Order: sequence, then structure tokens, then C-alpha cells
Amino acid sequence: MSSKLITAREAADFLARRDNFLILTHANPDGDTLGSGFALCAALNKLGKKARVLCPDEIPSKFRFLAPDSCDDFEYETVVAVDLADEKLLGKLQDAFKGKIELCIDHHGSNLKYSNLLFLESDAAAACECVYDVIKAIGVEITEYIASSLYLGMATDTGCFKFSNVTPRTHKYAAELMEFGAKFDEINRVMFEVKSKSRVAMEKLVLQEMEFFCDGQVALITVTKEMIDSTGCEPTDIDGITALSRQIEGVKIGITIKEKDQGVFKVSIRTFEPFDAAEICKNFGGGGHKRAAGCEFKSALSDVKKVLVEKVTEIIGTESI
Amino acid sequence: MSSKLITAREAADFLARRDNFLILTHANPDGDTLGSGFALCAALNKLGKKARVLCPDEIPSKFRFLAPDSCDDFEYETVVAVDLADEKLLGKLQDAFKGKIELCIDHHGSNLKYSNLLFLESDAAAACECVYDVIKAIGVEITEYIASSLYLGMATDTGCFKFSNVTPRTHKYAAELMEFGAKFDEINRVMFEVKSKSRVAMEKLVLQEMEFFCDGQVALITVTKEMIDSTGCEPTDIDGITALSRQIEGVKIGITIKEKDQGVFKVSIRTFEPFDAAEICKNFGGGGHKRAAGCEFKSALSDVKKVLVEKVTEIIGTESI
Repeated sequence: MSSKLITAREAADFLARRDNFLILTHANPDGDTLGSGFALCAALNKLGKKARVLCPDEIPSKFRFLAPDSCDDFEYETVVAVDLADEKLLGKLQDAFKGKIELCIDHHGSNLKYSNLLFLESDAAAACECVYDVIKAIGVEITEYIASSLYLGMATDTGCFKFSNVTPRTHKYAAELMEFGAKFDEINRVMFEVKSKSRVAMEKLVLQEMEFFCDGQVALITVTKEMIDSTGCEPTDIDGITALSRQIEGVKIGITIKEKDQGVFKVSIRTFEPFDAAEICKNFGGGGHKRAAGCEFKSALSDVKKVLVEKVTEIIGTESI
Repeated sequence: MSSKLITAREAADFLARRDNFLILTHANPDGDTLGSGFALCAALNKLGKKARVLCPDEIPSKFRFLAPDSCDDFEYETVVAVDLADEKLLGKLQDAFKGKIELCIDHHGSNLKYSNLLFLESDAAAACECVYDVIKAIGVEITEYIASSLYLGMATDTGCFKFSNVTPRTHKYAAELMEFGAKFDEINRVMFEVKSKSRVAMEKLVLQEMEFFCDGQVALITVTKEMIDSTGCEPTDIDGITALSRQIEGVKIGITIKEKDQGVFKVSIRTFEPFDAAEICKNFGGGGHKRAAGCEFKSALSDVKKVLVEKVTEIIGTESI
């Protein structure tokens, strides 16, 4: 199956022709998929259309300000997906919507082209950039709510304009959205400044337990279920813990081992040049990107650590020859 | 004394008429004053002028990439200051240059108007925004080096576009500087991602020792000389530690007590609405802004803590009535 690739203008025309929209986000929702979904929904409402957002999982509390108090009740006719590279990422909604998505608006170069129509800008830092292009093409008023929703996605997908995925366009769009009233300071405070007490307790534990290998070139973080229980962390409290491993001066490879279930460990690897995270994870049946990849183990924690440290030691050894 | 307020165009014309520039930054230099100074210096060089930057203190290692390997040797004729609100902030260069600054380019609304000419944009998030306006008026080519220097100042003065001082113009300028080749990803990595091992050790200690008062509305951080010595922190490693106190959910007043010398404690207070940090510090002979202020104590640490906690408890008690 392959999508018909369309422009923002064509996406807007398609939306203008249809009605009764169901907008799907990906599972484990983040600021970009939710910001995209709710912004598009509000823009369609402004156009006089019925629309609602459907998220496969519960919306994390810090994003809940986006969700309207009530939404239209209607039978949907047109299914749209935002920031959804693969139907599998619909999680528990996969069976219900596989093959039924008419339009997808996305920024992942890896998009599997499962939808009839696809507006894809793979150089966009966030799907919200693409949705903004579509909303501009629709031509409705960009309200403060739409501006804030889109800003949220751009900010969260770029670490607040910090990551290498930022382009001049990202900044230009941020400037425009601020002019439309995006509540950027409130959003940034909640997304990037405030930490729950549980998160702070987790960081303290993680820093206490962090291990270094290969002369400090490898940092290893472990997050066990016991640590999660003792700190009272929710899943969103643990987001970004992985980044801690790679933030330390001299660290080239950061490894985070999270206990998913009893005896099941999810491993995230973050690397700097010249190390390839996806290559490392391939050895263990995983994959991902050059700088960020993952794999899973069903094994004792001590064994997981051992095989990972052995593999990265071997790789670092080869590299320094 | 009062400066003549001029425009970016007039500042550019003044610079074009003169030569042999000495560009002064403030003491305890940050990314904004250094980015401003080195960008302006390079622009003046492009214009065929002699110029060099003079910083009252040693340039912290993370900013040293800005400093050229060598610079012009000449007798200066024209003294310019950047990001310098007050001649006192020249530190040890104060005596040498007091009353001699012809042009100041600044963004502090609190600028004391000590220079002959002043190009002041108090709504700019960073002095680098003002310097960029002047460089555009000069009309020289914006090189990658100039773009990177200016981007550095804008990013560091805004917490990477996170703080409430950001305006749409800040983002527009960031977009333009990226188009001129600013090495934004490298800069952001060094400024906002990488932490020294000493810094990580300090954060671990600080988190271990953090105290809470008033049902978690007050967080208190202490950084003693012993903690600095045991972790091997340099002054730049401790920058931003103050922010940790206010980042925790529910905290309204964050207090950081740093031991400056034996028995001398520098206190930084950060607040959220409705609490006024400057008002709190006034009680102890200090001052500052509504959200960030400071004061100093010569006393035993336990006494410093006691009087501070008593005062903020009283204030929070009053507020909740």
C-alpha cells in the first residue's frame, strides 16, 4: 500500500470537502501528537465542521489543559491521523482503524504510507509544523488556543528549540504563533521547568546508582520497578531520564535500562559521534536511529548489564584503535 | 549624567566614523555579553576597523571557542560597552574605564545611562538582539562566526527560548542567524546539555540535602565550600543550581544559600506569584527583581537558615489568610 502524497493546500481542500472528522493521535501521546490533534480539531470547528480527537491512551495530566471540556457527539465519517508514522502506533485502537485512515499529516521520514492521502514534511521538527501549514491553507483564524497547541508540539519535539532537528522555519513559526497569542511561557514552565517531587526523588536515586565504564565514555542508568514504586513515579515522570546518561561530560554512549515487567528490561541507548545506537541495538534484536535506539531483554538485570557493557566496551575498543 | 539615546542606525554611523575600538563586556561574563562583544568585534573587523574585546574576568572555558586565537594590537581610541547596565559591573576594570565609555549597546531597562551614546532596547531578551540590529545597520556580511556568537547570547539569556523574556523577534532573529550558519546544535549541546562530572556530583549532593518547609511551598538548597571542594566544582559548574529549588512541583519560594567565604553566605531567592523575591531580600539588606533577588549574610549557616525560614513562613502564612 502506498499513500498519495499531497500538499498542505490539497490537504486543506480535502478537509474542506469532508465533515464529521475523527482525528487519531499515536499511543503514549506526547505534546506533538496532542498539539497537532487538538489544533486541527479546533481549526475544523472554526470552519464549521464537526470533529473530535481520539487518543489510544489516557492523556497525561500535563497535557490535559489541551483537551476541551466537552466535544461534539456525532458519527464520524472521515478518519485523519496526526504524527502517526505507522498504524501499529495506534496501540489498542489498531484493530479498529487499520486501513481506515484517509488522511495522515506527519513529519516522520519513516512514515509507512498506510493512509490514502499523506501530507508529509520530513524536514519538519514537529508534526505541528505540518498541521500549521494545513491550518494556514484552510484559512481560519488562528486562535490563542490553536497557537498554544501548535507551539506546544514544536517546543516539546525540539527540547524547547534545542535539538538539531530545529530549522529556521521552526523559529519562524514559533514567532508567528507567539504573535497569535501562544502562551509560550506557561507552556515552557510546565513542560521544561516543573518537576514532580517523585521525579526529583527518581533523579536522586538515578544519580546515586549511575555507573561508568570505559574511562567514563559509557554511562549506565538503571530504573527498576522498585525505584519506581519507592518514588511513586508515574510514566511521564520517567520521560527524559534517558537523557541524563548522555548529558555528562565525556560520555559517548549512554545506556538506560528500565524494568518494564518482572524480568523484562527495556534498554534505551543514546550516542554521540562516531557511535551508532541503532547498530548497537541491532545486536540485541532492536533498532532505531543513529543517535537514539532501543532493544528489549528478558533476562536477569545483572546479565542485561553484562552483555550490554561487554558489547559497548568492544565497540569503543575497536573505535579507539 | 545621562546618555544620548540613539537608534541602531545612529550607532552604526558612529562606529563607521570611528576606529580602534575597545569593546568592554561585564565582569563574570556570560554568553550574552561575550557573544555581543565578539560579534561586534568581528563585524567591525569586516568593516576594516581595528577592534578587540576586553573582559574584566577570565572567559569561562565553555565560552572560550568565541575568543579568536589572536587579536589586533593597537592603541584604542573608542571605548564601547555591551550588555553593561552599570559601570560597576566592569569589576576590576571599573577604575580604568569609568566615564570613558562612548557608546553602550544594551537591553537592560535598568541601564544607568553612564555612556555618551546609548542604544538601548529594553524589550530585547538579549543584548545580542541589539548588537544584531547594529550589525545589520553596519551592513557587513553576517559570517557563520558572527551568527554563532549572536545566537549564543540569545540562547543563553533565554534558557534556550524558554523564559518569558522571549519575544517573537527573538525567534525571528534566531531563524535568520541559523540561515547565516549559526552552529546552533553544537552551541545548545555545550550550553544546555553537557554537565561536568563535578556538576552531576553537586546536583546529587544538593538533591540529597534539599529541605522543604511550609508544606512543600518552600525549598531550600545549601551549597557549602565543603560541597564545592569535595565535588571539585568550578564557579560555572554551580551556575543554575539556584534554578533547581524552584523547579519542584508545588514550590513557590526557592532559597539557595551559597557559602562564599568562611562565614559569608550569598542567598538567592526565586519566587512564583504572588511572592516577591525583592521584598523578601529587602528585609536582609538585599534586593533584585520580583522573581529573582539576593542578599548576603555574615553569620553561622544554621542562623542564616533560621531567619530565612522564619521570614518566608511568616510571608506564606500571611498570604494564605
